[in-house]
This record gives sequence, structure tokens and C-alpha cells, in this order.
Amino acid sequence: MQGKFITLEGIDGAGKSTQLAWIVELLQRAGLVAIVSREPGGTPLGEQLRALVLDNAMTMHPETEALLMFAARREHLDKLILPALAQGQWVVSDRFTDASFAYQGGGRELDRDKLATLERWTQGVLQPDLTLYFDVPVELGQQRVKQIKVVDRFEKEKTEFFQRVRAAYLDRAKQFPERIKIVDGSQPVTVVKAAVERILLDVLNRA
Amino acid sequence: MQGKFITLEGIDGAGKSTQLAWIVELLQRAGLVAIVSREPGGTPLGEQLRALVLDNAMTMHPETEALLMFAARREHLDKLILPALAQGQWVVSDRFTDASFAYQGGGRELDRDKLATLERWTQGVLQPDLTLYFDVPVELGQQRVKQIKVVDRFEKEKTEFFQRVRAAYLDRAKQFPERIKIVDGSQPVTVVKAAVERILLDVLNRA
Repeated sequence: MQGKFITLEGIDGAGKSTQLAWIVELLQRAGLVAIVSREPGGTPLGEQLRALVLDNAMTMHPETEALLMFAARREHLDKLILPALAQGQWVVSDRFTDASFAYQGGGRELDRDKLATLERWTQGVLQPDLTLYFDVPVELGQQRVKQIKVVDRFEKEKTEFFQRVRAAYLDRAKQFPERIKIVDGSQPVTVVKAAVERILLDVLNRA
Repeated sequence: MQGKFITLEGIDGAGKSTQLAWIVELLQRAGLVAIVSREPGGTPLGEQLRALVLDNAMTMHPETEALLMFAARREHLDKLILPALAQGQWVVSDRFTDASFAYQGGGRELDRDKLATLERWTQGVLQPDLTLYFDVPVELGQQRVKQIKVVDRFEKEKTEFFQRVRAAYLDRAKQFPERIKIVDGSQPVTVVKAAVERILLDVLNRA
């Protein structure tokens, strides 16, 4: 049986990492093999591209950034996601194409049609079976991020950038309500975990 | 006055490096500032991407390869080619977009329409003012390359790959006869230099 593909989306500080660990635990409890991955990244080439696009000292044209994200995604699909799903494994990825629409489309204001073309080339008709979008006010996300790590090339952007990212995520969720579930990431962790569990059990029951 | 953009194309071993040095000398004699560049490469990010795509130990989907080539090209145009031309400098690049049509389109047999879309996004209407395509039989190119260096991820390809590359270069030259001049690279160096000089003087006289 084909595995399922779950993606987690949201700005940094939305709580994705905590919930990713929780999703893996829920899948394991259900006796499923879960592969955890991330974007950009997921393959040796993808991780090298990740280092380039997140490098704080690097500057690049927004279109360059989008091409690199989709180059890494093409490898991610080809070498990890598709083979794993074919083997019946479940793949949980910290970000996927919705992030390109949010960050390059919303944040960098790149033409959405170009992103849609790259999406079509790279994925064909494939879409995640479930996308959890963790929504938090930009200020809360930024506050949480500052406490834990050195900011990368994206995280150093101004508040307005992340407001465009968040708006683009919400647009995308409105466009694909069946696939993308919005979770209020500003709630206490236990409340968010309970919400994630309800959504995931629904997917597991249908699988 | 806007500078001119000259590109050199051909398989490895076609004699591009020797002729590139010769073109720079001819431009300098004419009192022009010539900037030498290459693809993939030409910028710090582009050179890092070059290292990835030429890495013999790396495997990647042909579409990934094309996306990385155009990502590097987008930076090359944005950070080097366009600013230099605007300042009246001449830019001489060892390979440009014709190489994507030859290597990714011909060699890897990637859909030409995708390459044309990427070309349009990246360059708009910009094209080189002159492209010199150095044509050599595949066997001669390979023989010359083997004598001088360790082969990279492209050079390790089989003869049929390079035959498709050469055929795609010749197709492209037929499609754009005004811009792309075919030079017989199998002739003695002095003969090739004389041919290059004739073509270049023509461009200089028109400039």
C-alpha cells in the first residue's frame, strides 16, 4: 500500500518542530513507518542548496532563490519522497511547495504564475495528502525564534516580510481547504497537540 | 555606451579557452574593457553551484540540473553581465544559455519548451550580441580533453551524449544564424584564430 505524504507549514516559531515529533509518535503508535524530512533539504544535494539559500552572508535574486528551492525539491521528490511512498512509508516534511508560495511568492513578491509552472514541472499532479499550517501572529513567531537560535537569511527579514508570508499561507489554505488544515499555533502546546491528533486520526481512519 | 555580450560555446576540447584569451586580446587592442566570465559560475553563488553540478560523485535529475544552471545564470546576469554592459564593458562568457539547450536539452533530452520558459524568465529579450560556436567532432574533443585534466560529471558521459550535445548546438546555430557563428574548431589554432578575428572585427566595426 502506498504511504501518505504529510507536510508542515508555517513561519519559524510557529511550533512545527514540536508538532513534527508528535506526528511521528502518533504514526509510530499506529504501527506505521514514518520518514522525517525537511525543505529545503532532504537529500545530500538539497542540504547543500539549503546551506546556500539560508546563508546570511549570501545575496540572491528572488528568482534565483525560487529556482534553487525547486531544484532541491525535484531531488527531494525523486530520491526520497516518491520512493518512500511507493514502499508504503509515510513521509512527514517540515515545509514543501506551499512554503515557496508563502516565502518566494508572498515574502519576495515573486510572480505566482512562475511558481505554479515550477510546481507543475516538479510535482506533476502530486500534492501532499495532508498539510498542517501552523498559524501564529508574526510577532509571536519572531519572539519565539529569537530565544532559540541565530537568525538565517530569511529570519533576518523585517516584520512586513513575514506578514506577507503569513498572508500568502492563509491564501493558499483558503485555496486548498481539503488538503491544508489551519492549526492555531499560538495556543498552548498541549492544545495544539490535541488539535493535530484529531486531524491526523481522521487521516489515519481514512487510510 | 552599452557594452557588448559575447559568448563562446562548444563541447570541451573544442578550443574555447585558447580562443577566449585571443578574443580578450583583440578587444584590448581595440581599447575596450573586457570582462571574462563563465557558466556555470561567474558569481560567488554561481561558482558554488558549478561545483555541485560538475561534482563527479553527485547524481541529480536532469530537471534539477537545468534549474541549477538557470539559478546560476539568473545571478550571473543580475550581478555581473547586466551591470558590466551598462557600464560600457564587454563581457565574454565561456558558455551561456545555448549550452543549456545543448547539454540539458540535447544531452539529457530534457523538454526544450521548459528550457525556453526558463530562458524567457531569466533573460527576457536579452541575447548575446555574438555567439561563437566552436564545432569539433566528438572524438576529437574527447581526445583533447583526456590529455589535460580529470573528467567532471559531464565529461564522463558516453560518446552518444556528446553527439546529442553537438547536434543540439548545430540546431541552435541554424535557428539563430545572425547571432551564432559556427567556427570549425578542428582546424589548426592559427587558422581558428584568424576566423575568430574576422568575425570579431566585423562586430567591432558595427559597434
